[in-house]
Amino acid sequence: MTFAFDEGALYSQIGAFLSEDLGRGDITTQSVVARNAQARGRFIAKEAMTVCGLEAAEAVFSTLDTQQQIEAFVSDGDDVEAGKVIARTSGFADVLLGGERVALNLLQRLSGITTLTRQYVKLTEGTRARIVDTRKTTPGLRMLEKYAVQIGGGRNHRFGLDDGVLIKDNHIALAGGVAAAIERARDVAGHLHKIEVEVSNERDLREAISAKADIIMLDNLTPEETRPMVELTRELAGENVLLESSGGINLETVRAYAETGVDLISVGALTHSARAMDISFKIQAG
Amino acid sequence: MTFAFDEGALYSQIGAFLSEDLGRGDITTQSVVARNAQARGRFIAKEAMTVCGLEAAEAVFSTLDTQQQIEAFVSDGDDVEAGKVIARTSGFADVLLGGERVALNLLQRLSGITTLTRQYVKLTEGTRARIVDTRKTTPGLRMLEKYAVQIGGGRNHRFGLDDGVLIKDNHIALAGGVAAAIERARDVAGHLHKIEVEVSNERDLREAISAKADIIMLDNLTPEETRPMVELTRELAGENVLLESSGGINLETVRAYAETGVDLISVGALTHSARAMDISFKIQAG
Amino acid sequence: MTFAFDEGALYSQIGAFLSEDLGRGDITTQSVVARNAQARGRFIAKEAMTVCGLEAAEAVFSTLDTQQQIEAFVSDGDDVEAGKVIARTSGFADVLLGGERVALNLLQRLSGITTLTRQYVKLTEGTRARIVDTRKTTPGLRMLEKYAVQIGGGRNHRFGLDDGVLIKDNHIALAGGVAAAIERARDVAGHLHKIEVEVSNERDLREAISAKADIIMLDNLTPEETRPMVELTRELAGENVLLESSGGINLETVRAYAETGVDLISVGALTHSARAMDISFKIQAG
Amino acid sequence: MTFAFDEGALYSQIGAFLSEDLGRGDITTQSVVARNAQARGRFIAKEAMTVCGLEAAEAVFSTLDTQQQIEAFVSDGDDVEAGKVIARTSGFADVLLGGERVALNLLQRLSGITTLTRQYVKLTEGTRARIVDTRKTTPGLRMLEKYAVQIGGGRNHRFGLDDGVLIKDNHIALAGGVAAAIERARDVAGHLHKIEVEVSNERDLREAISAKADIIMLDNLTPEETRPMVELTRELAGENVLLESSGGINLETVRAYAETGVDLISVGALTHSARAMDISFKIQAG
Amino acid sequence: MTFAFDEGALYSQIGAFLSEDLGRGDITTQSVVARNAQARGRFIAKEAMTVCGLEAAEAVFSTLDTQQQIEAFVSDGDDVEAGKVIARTSGFADVLLGGERVALNLLQRLSGITTLTRQYVKLTEGTRARIVDTRKTTPGLRMLEKYAVQIGGGRNHRFGLDDGVLIKDNHIALAGGVAAAIERARDVAGHLHKIEVEVSNERDLREAISAKADIIMLDNLTPEETRPMVELTRELAGENVLLESSGGINLETVRAYAETGVDLISVGALTHSARAMDISFKIQAG
Amino acid sequence: MTFAFDEGALYSQIGAFLSEDLGRGDITTQSVVARNAQARGRFIAKEAMTVCGLEAAEAVFSTLDTQQQIEAFVSDGDDVEAGKVIARTSGFADVLLGGERVALNLLQRLSGITTLTRQYVKLTEGTRARIVDTRKTTPGLRMLEKYAVQIGGGRNHRFGLDDGVLIKDNHIALAGGVAAAIERARDVAGHLHKIEVEVSNERDLREAISAKADIIMLDNLTPEETRPMVELTRELAGENVLLESSGGINLETVRAYAETGVDLISVGALTHSARAMDISFKIQAG
Repeated sequence: MTFAFDEGALYSQIGAFLSEDLGRGDITTQSVVARNAQARGRFIAKEAMTVCGLEAAEAVFSTLDTQQQIEAFVSDGDDVEAGKVIARTSGFADVLLGGERVALNLLQRLSGITTLTRQYVKLTEGTRARIVDTRKTTPGLRMLEKYAVQIGGGRNHRFGLDDGVLIKDNHIALAGGVAAAIERARDVAGHLHKIEVEVSNERDLREAISAKADIIMLDNLTPEETRPMVELTRELAGENVLLESSGGINLETVRAYAETGVDLISVGALTHSARAMDISFKIQAG
Repeated sequence: MTFAFDEGALYSQIGAFLSEDLGRGDITTQSVVARNAQARGRFIAKEAMTVCGLEAAEAVFSTLDTQQQIEAFVSDGDDVEAGKVIARTSGFADVLLGGERVALNLLQRLSGITTLTRQYVKLTEGTRARIVDTRKTTPGLRMLEKYAVQIGGGRNHRFGLDDGVLIKDNHIALAGGVAAAIERARDVAGHLHKIEVEVSNERDLREAISAKADIIMLDNLTPEETRPMVELTRELAGENVLLESSGGINLETVRAYAETGVDLISVGALTHSARAMDISFKIQAG
Repeated sequence: MTFAFDEGALYSQIGAFLSEDLGRGDITTQSVVARNAQARGRFIAKEAMTVCGLEAAEAVFSTLDTQQQIEAFVSDGDDVEAGKVIARTSGFADVLLGGERVALNLLQRLSGITTLTRQYVKLTEGTRARIVDTRKTTPGLRMLEKYAVQIGGGRNHRFGLDDGVLIKDNHIALAGGVAAAIERARDVAGHLHKIEVEVSNERDLREAISAKADIIMLDNLTPEETRPMVELTRELAGENVLLESSGGINLETVRAYAETGVDLISVGALTHSARAMDISFKIQAG
Repeated sequence: MTFAFDEGALYSQIGAFLSEDLGRGDITTQSVVARNAQARGRFIAKEAMTVCGLEAAEAVFSTLDTQQQIEAFVSDGDDVEAGKVIARTSGFADVLLGGERVALNLLQRLSGITTLTRQYVKLTEGTRARIVDTRKTTPGLRMLEKYAVQIGGGRNHRFGLDDGVLIKDNHIALAGGVAAAIERARDVAGHLHKIEVEVSNERDLREAISAKADIIMLDNLTPEETRPMVELTRELAGENVLLESSGGINLETVRAYAETGVDLISVGALTHSARAMDISFKIQAG
Repeated sequence: MTFAFDEGALYSQIGAFLSEDLGRGDITTQSVVARNAQARGRFIAKEAMTVCGLEAAEAVFSTLDTQQQIEAFVSDGDDVEAGKVIARTSGFADVLLGGERVALNLLQRLSGITTLTRQYVKLTEGTRARIVDTRKTTPGLRMLEKYAVQIGGGRNHRFGLDDGVLIKDNHIALAGGVAAAIERARDVAGHLHKIEVEVSNERDLREAISAKADIIMLDNLTPEETRPMVELTRELAGENVLLESSGGINLETVRAYAETGVDLISVGALTHSARAMDISFKIQAG
Repeated sequence: MTFAFDEGALYSQIGAFLSEDLGRGDITTQSVVARNAQARGRFIAKEAMTVCGLEAAEAVFSTLDTQQQIEAFVSDGDDVEAGKVIARTSGFADVLLGGERVALNLLQRLSGITTLTRQYVKLTEGTRARIVDTRKTTPGLRMLEKYAVQIGGGRNHRFGLDDGVLIKDNHIALAGGVAAAIERARDVAGHLHKIEVEVSNERDLREAISAKADIIMLDNLTPEETRPMVELTRELAGENVLLESSGGINLETVRAYAETGVDLISVGALTHSARAMDISFKIQAG
């Protein structure tokens, strides 16, 4: 799922990001570089990675100068080795220097998320489990970060609190039990929404299945604890219920979860703790 | 240096972050939780960390309900152990549930930056070197992230391209040399700005000192390569020139850089690759 | 389902509505009424109606003067007779005169929608059919108009293109058939979304059921054409599939549709053609 | 009077309308329709009407894709029969599907206002009376709705409280009488503004004429009550004073008012209670 | 005429002005003054003037800290001598220092306009002529500057191109003559607007009177040239037409224009060339 | 120093300026001038001046119509005589008439600042003193006004409170002395900032030099008082400290200050009290 309407939103955000960095203007470049000087720049991968964010990087430069484009040598989702020239651009030197940092900050961060997502996805190959993200994204960057997860082969969970019903422990505590919460949700929520509920023990799982939850999240269980829950679910509800593992899952443990037979594995670290990839931008006159 | 005027800007950003997460409203809570239900919530550290972001977390809730406050048991900059209840709040259940994720996303990220900064600062104790951040911040979060660096004991480098003159390799390539760039900057930039220039070899260092650069950044040198540069600078210019090490410095190498005698060590990882700290928010009725 | 977060959005919209009406200021009141003059105002129903929009009306006045409140004698959803004083307020005369038109425009329009919705709902009593709205709302007023539908006893369909999957004739034409479209949607859409598809003949209905659509919209059929489609669906899929009648349904025909056994009846006229209710605002000195 | 500067404002509003409908993106189209698929769409009148809003409809699509235009077969203000293809467009399928609802919502609503206005205007042909609108417009849509009135042959009354002086009953109650209010207005209001005052009995009419009101609104009178007021005005002030009938005038009564000899008849229903015209948008691949 | 609704607009503008001056924060105060330090400040007139802008100055401080008020010892429109303490305020030192410059820039500029306006008004005492401003205001400050003219005893001409019809030489050139332009305007413009037309010779004056212009602007005539135009107008149209002198009128010549018998004298210099009054802000600890 | 990124900011401001003037649209032109009428316009200097603001004037017209350009016959900074046609443009008559006032208001004001700045600069020729501006700019116009100063040959002081450290009398009063303030600033402010301090007597000057201030502002001294301060500074600190004269300096006194040997002379009047230059815009059909 890509995003059709977000081009406008993307440009609006990038304008704000540039404004954050440029403030009243780039005083070094204004002082040191001749006005109207031309330059060429190259984005170079300094380590192996899966690239993501080329369109966002281009948007940075074209916000500063509508004529400015970048010529990409790879596409979002391509794996590259260290030393690879990912893309190049040429134009006014002050535009290249003014957009450099914001473009790199986006490219490095999104490539970090995509690279990490791909690792998780590879580790689950051959199982039915799909890697999904969470709402543990950087405030302000959710659309871009969820796009990076897609590019890495992951799936997107909810985009916000308004586009899916997920009943978590805090809701259950307030609603007076799993079944009560599910029934209230089915009665009140719009007819286009499925209902997901979080459980962490067998009693709640049985209650969720009885109440006809569409998706059940198994929260903070070990793979060993997860397996009998999967079996019980298949026994009681067949394939009609989707199962999602969640909570503290990392690169070491993801395979074990995938092999329990769950349908979905959500990983907060994809977006909240990905390391930025090392990418440089080299400019020369011309 | 803390920020006086940013309260308005902080609230404006947090409104946007909430809007990103809430969209047209929290349909789970609206379906499952009784209107006007009251609840109590506690923020709990799930690992040892240096806390940062309590004011931002409070701003999240008070944006949803101007009456909502949080009672903090620690202050920004305090070290806590796993299990520590950092803060608590009580109020409308839908406000607590609606603000939970944004508040956590901020707290976890800022605490991650502060905790990492403190590690770097501790590793340089007893030397003259100060840890400074870079412009490699998350787009849109620079003010908050630079605040987290301060709280961790680090210093802030430029806030943007407009509040400091830093002549980097890309500028030098376009300006035709170190001395030419420094002279042009001194002639054109405002009289209140010092001039920092990036060098990576002895020839450029000598040229920078001759041209009376105020600060010299030693870029991508090893500690071994750095040491003679420091000595040469002290010999030629005494303490009048500040020296900054920069480029790929990490927790393993920072001490060695600090011991070379440089004045400043800038570390991009403080903001671009800090891991989010694990913090949970537990809600109960009442 | 009411709206938790919308208070901020509501106030922002109302600020824009007031700005549209006030422009650079109310030159009549500034010329004619003494500064700081006090006044009392009453909202009076000039015909029988179901009231809706009291909170919005109050927000108009409190936007002009944060102290200004209205005292309501009825609640949203109450039926009133002609002549009933719905609410009263007192404060600065220029605030009452400046907010009068916007407050009335909102109250009259929302009460019109609620009153009309209630008529439809009453006509379907005793059947399983629920009245739902559409996206045929006034641009800019969707949240308020969908709220008015709720207050009238109707249910809300999608709030936008992003919070539900509804495959309409135009999609099917582009996707190459009903089954192809449903399968693609199930594969790509998030796991929390049900899938609704529009059909208008038996062949497409059978295809939709085979492809396991969750909800099927019967578009532009007469009640007579609808009945056998309902029977076929129950025969093939029992109660697992929800059925929705849609297209040109009005007060004369809604009962006949409801008696076919469909689950949902969507009515565009609720929001696109409701007549404004007649409400006046009478001000006197004091 | 058309609007020169509003193009920018129109696009800004339409961006907000699209955002209201698209939210984070059209998940049905993203799931079901191939990226970059091309399509053709036609707007078809489903009933007889006077068309209005073609420029607004085009603006919807060109906001989503700057290249997107619509080819109109009629102009705003043209009468069409049921079945008439009003306009067509071709381009990216996701742009057509993403803009469809907002474009239709605007076209249907504006055509409804224009069609209704034209009915009123026709009913007054051969008299001196002109049909004028009121400020009883949909909040946020005043400029578009007043444009639709123009296209239907009506005239525009005030655009807001800031561009004309109209002293109503509420003002008179606070100012202490008709004459006092008019004199204060003449003394304080800018020299470019005429002064209109609302009266509902002969005494107030005489007072308004004595105080040299430029326009007198006869509020909530029957045609029978209106006629002697017109005669008295012509006797005392000749043609120097404009007379306006206002209040509860409908298609049944408008002719009788027009025949009393008033200059202006204001009709709130033009904008607050027009029924949306039935227009469909049919898309096919290509 | 004062402004009722502008409080919100005023605060919004002042937020922007503060943002222009504060950028990312006041680094001097943050470095030098203790956090939470208290201070007292006094605004002192350094020359004789008519004060204007106290409310705007207060709004500056209360934007930074909602609790911050100023205690004024005079009112807008009062004359003060050099040395007079105009107002005082106390609160957080960083709020006083952060708002100082913007508050002074507004106070000094508005007091300059008011002081200059009063000079013009005094020079026309005893004549029928009123001093009016123009649209030659500082972009972005029109409402404040026109308020300052009012306070100085002047009247306001149009607030913008949308709230009055003024046919100038450029319009006449395009419309094909004075009479043609007036007739077109009367036919098309709203019925609440008077029509003003600019003329500069007797032929055009006669044409304007024949076409029943409401107001006639005598542009760029000397007082000697103006006098016979006034006489001719009174002879042909009595007091029914207002006459306005305009163009290059200054403190030396205004009295001569006033004595010609014109009703209005418009002076661009009131807003485009007023000198800022000298006002200081002295802060002390406490 | 010119401004790279400000093009976006400039257009955004100009949109707001146009909105301030046009409001809901230019009712005179809409009434009087045929739609789509073409016209040609010329900007004519009515007095001798140094021109500034041509790019801003063009931006006004191109905001109204993206195709609209102006053909300039001079450049910003050129001196012209009275009668000179500065620039011309042709296009839609309503665009020319709609943008006329805003374009003139900007051109006249900026040319006023540039013309005045040039006078100051010429009076200091042959000395080391440079003319610099202050923060006494028109709220909202700082970037444009500081640009006008540059064009006139002046230098820019701080752009805001965030891009330079300037310790003034009010700070010293709160910090407890000159030396204490300087030391605190050096310890806390970022390492890229120089430190300027205001002094007005010899004791403070000595303290500032001892504390190693980078720049010292001599505030409100006469030229006679200034001279010995300059001598003392050179004796104690050579050329390492920059000296700035400030406070009440005007065209009569600026030469005397320049001859004292100070490095910088700041003049608030450049921006707060410049007289608008007289420029007209003449339109003809075609």
